[in-house]
Amino acid sequence: MLAVRVNNQQLTVEETAKPDNPDEVLVRVLLSGICNTDLEIARGYAGFNGTIGHEFVGVVEDGELAGRRVVGEINAGCGKCELCRAGDPRHCPTRTVLGIVGRDGAHAEFLQLPAVNLIPVPENIADRHAVFTEPLAAACGILERAAITAGDRVAVIGDGKLGLLCAQVVALTGATVLLVGKHPEKLQIAARRGIETANPEEAVKRQRQFDVVVEASGGAAGFKLALDLLRPRGKLVLKSTFHGSTEIDAARIVVDEISIVGSRCGRFEPALDLLNRQAIDVENLISEEHPLSSGVQAMSRAGASGILKVLLRP
Amino acid sequence: MLAVRVNNQQLTVEETAKPDNPDEVLVRVLLSGICNTDLEIARGYAGFNGTIGHEFVGVVEDGELAGRRVVGEINAGCGKCELCRAGDPRHCPTRTVLGIVGRDGAHAEFLQLPAVNLIPVPENIADRHAVFTEPLAAACGILERAAITAGDRVAVIGDGKLGLLCAQVVALTGATVLLVGKHPEKLQIAARRGIETANPEEAVKRQRQFDVVVEASGGAAGFKLALDLLRPRGKLVLKSTFHGSTEIDAARIVVDEISIVGSRCGRFEPALDLLNRQAIDVENLISEEHPLSSGVQAMSRAGASGILKVLLRP
Repeated sequence: MLAVRVNNQQLTVEETAKPDNPDEVLVRVLLSGICNTDLEIARGYAGFNGTIGHEFVGVVEDGELAGRRVVGEINAGCGKCELCRAGDPRHCPTRTVLGIVGRDGAHAEFLQLPAVNLIPVPENIADRHAVFTEPLAAACGILERAAITAGDRVAVIGDGKLGLLCAQVVALTGATVLLVGKHPEKLQIAARRGIETANPEEAVKRQRQFDVVVEASGGAAGFKLALDLLRPRGKLVLKSTFHGSTEIDAARIVVDEISIVGSRCGRFEPALDLLNRQAIDVENLISEEHPLSSGVQAMSRAGASGILKVLLRP
Repeated sequence: MLAVRVNNQQLTVEETAKPDNPDEVLVRVLLSGICNTDLEIARGYAGFNGTIGHEFVGVVEDGELAGRRVVGEINAGCGKCELCRAGDPRHCPTRTVLGIVGRDGAHAEFLQLPAVNLIPVPENIADRHAVFTEPLAAACGILERAAITAGDRVAVIGDGKLGLLCAQVVALTGATVLLVGKHPEKLQIAARRGIETANPEEAVKRQRQFDVVVEASGGAAGFKLALDLLRPRGKLVLKSTFHGSTEIDAARIVVDEISIVGSRCGRFEPALDLLNRQAIDVENLISEEHPLSSGVQAMSRAGASGILKVLLRP
């Protein structure tokens, strides 16, 4: 089967063996989405070699769910540790992660996951929307890490696809949301949903006005702006897995008693519910669709300026 | 009157005018304590010029509390903002802070504070223990920022005076505490209270085993060790106001969904209660006492290796 693979930072589309672990379920991929994490992995992040990709919608080929359209929780736990037994494999210390850690991913004709990871997709969610379940779940994960309620003032920094999802999810809580970004055409997508937008130069004038700031730009400048916008005892949610080290002003964190919380994966159920209710605009986040065989070019497009989600169709 | 003053990073003991703001209460200082923040201010931190010092016990000279022995909340708020009206001036945006921001401090014969900042000291707390109220309150402040309960595994990094207070306060919650430091004679003070101790080389072997880590060393190495010791979704309490910027591994914070919370000042009441019940060993934290007139030498001693709290007596 065809798959987009990374080998020592070399990206190729190649013929590779169909996965055949008898303990897992085979899924035929209908669509997969390119995430910024894929681009970082191709540059060496996480030291991963193999088939990349972790956002997908597919059809189950075998077992109990055969023929069902599914999305999949990307963390596959050991099933035995305290965390896995509590039903949450996201921090299992020996987990594998689809297309990121020790497990081939979704930019392929087929993938495998444990049966417990697969979640059927409600009928009236289109494939091109269902493929957003994983990143939308990650956006919903903010609410697991910060108790945001109506009336809170929240800034989201970064108008990329993650920032646009985060801003929409947070706005549904009734909080007042400001989306900060540099791309008028991307900010416009949020503005059409009634979300206030600003560029960084405008935003920085609103120092210490926000209860919560979500950093979704993945850059050091975004991190600094986030600290500037937070009120004393405010909370900064770090959403982007930017790698390398970042300079932080520790005294500022202590004196203003700031909280910084990391946020990675979220639960799929709330995301599917939002997609089912069409509560989130994902349609306008889709920039391009390419055949899987053009995966290398598609990855390059996904990293280009002005481009949001790029989809791959096997 | 005599006072220890900083002028453009020049430290002197000099004759200066007795404070005479008619809206505030005059306090004759009995003892003051030298904090690491004083040493940093003398090196230029916070850009403060004037009389330094914020840990004290004294006797009220005038007004309703005349003759009473008191300690004093160091943050003097505007009295009008939302925070001040809620009874907590610690984050008032226009606050002054005793010996730190816009207000002469405690290493002097006399100081002034608003009446609302002064808290009488129970009779059976000795002066040399009462002078620890402010730093002990800061240690108690950890519990405002992290819900530590019996059974939690907590590491405290740094065996200086702040770390020793933090370890003792956290141990009273019933949590299992490990104090990490490089000075056997300092660690011994905690060990005598039944607290487990380790040097950094031993501690680093216990990666991802702690629910909460309190960073009280003020160094970049302590910060890195703290992240190493935390379990996924664990909480790092930043207690030291080290200045300058610190490099952090943001991806680690996101992937393991770590929380980092700053903690500065605490409330005085719990600290006075602990001192009154003799629940905390502060006696063994006192290294030396000097006359106020030797304030410059005393500051130098406070920064010397192996020295814990240095007290000044006017």
